[in-house]
Amino acid sequence: MSEIDRNELAHVNADLILMTQLVGKAITDATTALLTGDLALAQQVIGGDDPLNDLNAKIEDECFQITSTQAPVARKLRMVMSAVRMATSLERMGDLAVHIAKQVRLRYPNPAIPAELHETFAQMGKAAFKIVEKTGEVIETHDASLAEQIAIYDDELDRLHRELFTTVLSENWAHGVEAAIDVTLLSRFYERFGDHAVTVARRLVHIVTGEPYNR
Amino acid sequence: MSEIDRNELAHVNADLILMTQLVGKAITDATTALLTGDLALAQQVIGGDDPLNDLNAKIEDECFQITSTQAPVARKLRMVMSAVRMATSLERMGDLAVHIAKQVRLRYPNPAIPAELHETFAQMGKAAFKIVEKTGEVIETHDASLAEQIAIYDDELDRLHRELFTTVLSENWAHGVEAAIDVTLLSRFYERFGDHAVTVARRLVHIVTGEPYNR
Repeated sequence: MSEIDRNELAHVNADLILMTQLVGKAITDATTALLTGDLALAQQVIGGDDPLNDLNAKIEDECFQITSTQAPVARKLRMVMSAVRMATSLERMGDLAVHIAKQVRLRYPNPAIPAELHETFAQMGKAAFKIVEKTGEVIETHDASLAEQIAIYDDELDRLHRELFTTVLSENWAHGVEAAIDVTLLSRFYERFGDHAVTVARRLVHIVTGEPYNR
Repeated sequence: MSEIDRNELAHVNADLILMTQLVGKAITDATTALLTGDLALAQQVIGGDDPLNDLNAKIEDECFQITSTQAPVARKLRMVMSAVRMATSLERMGDLAVHIAKQVRLRYPNPAIPAELHETFAQMGKAAFKIVEKTGEVIETHDASLAEQIAIYDDELDRLHRELFTTVLSENWAHGVEAAIDVTLLSRFYERFGDHAVTVARRLVHIVTGEPYNR
């Protein structure tokens, strides 16, 4: 790979890492808005989605340009093709943070979640932030071993999602059907957020190590 | 575009169309299983997901080969790059059909949905099948005007999704919290199914007409 090639891919990588940072901020802010009922912060998350959409489009253009002008083959072509799909996954993660923020706005001035689930969603928010932070590190370092840590946070999100079902379906649930649906969908957004991060990490590991990509 | 190029892209297109057919069968069978509680049919949908995953991988490989060996540029490169992402969306639509089938299996021998929602889910199943059928036609014909029909079916799925919320949240809902969550998640799978079809159609329209791709 020539020095020029490296620099161009470095641009794409830098944009992917920037996406992970914006997504990390979005999911953290969305979670804070959810826990505090902060409408202004929810609006900020909703408005903050445009830069992510723009970055996704920019990465697609950059990869198109690299492919058009350099005719990359083998590993470099795999990296370019994967970058486009990783950007799509990261954009979708941003959308999921927006879904959470919109739920805060929909229920405002009422809280979007009952107090007894604050701790669960706080933990989901933390795991979701860590998972996208680690995803950024995988993109930056190409350290395949980080994918294992991502899988652990994803398991944590799955566990919290199941735990929430238990709470909602228990006889002690006093918040009715609408709140049950609200928190289930919210919880599913976090769970899907984790799944997308796993997809991104697996793509990179596949390129770095050549290990099969398990969908 | 040379004749050979055309043939290779024709292979990719044929595989994409095959994916739409498999996905159409999957969502129809999943809906039938949902409405009738047919466990064997649900199992068949779940087992039928492997060919879709394999086709997705095959299309990615084909596009990689075309790009490696022919260094396509301009419109052809856009088509090759988009084919990979369309395959991903179609695979995801297959996953959503599997989610529906798994819900049938989870609740068996009980029905997964109450009788009063049969008609709603029957309509969702029909709209979902039509949307993927039209998606196949767009891929086959490159007729951008079909995208409008896809948007209409997607609106229909969104409308049914909202209607279901009204049913579940009404005072007459007699099936409790668990059933409310079940049908909401199921309905969301159909809604997401439609969104993915719209994404596929928009990608193609973007390539065919050069109109901006609205994410």
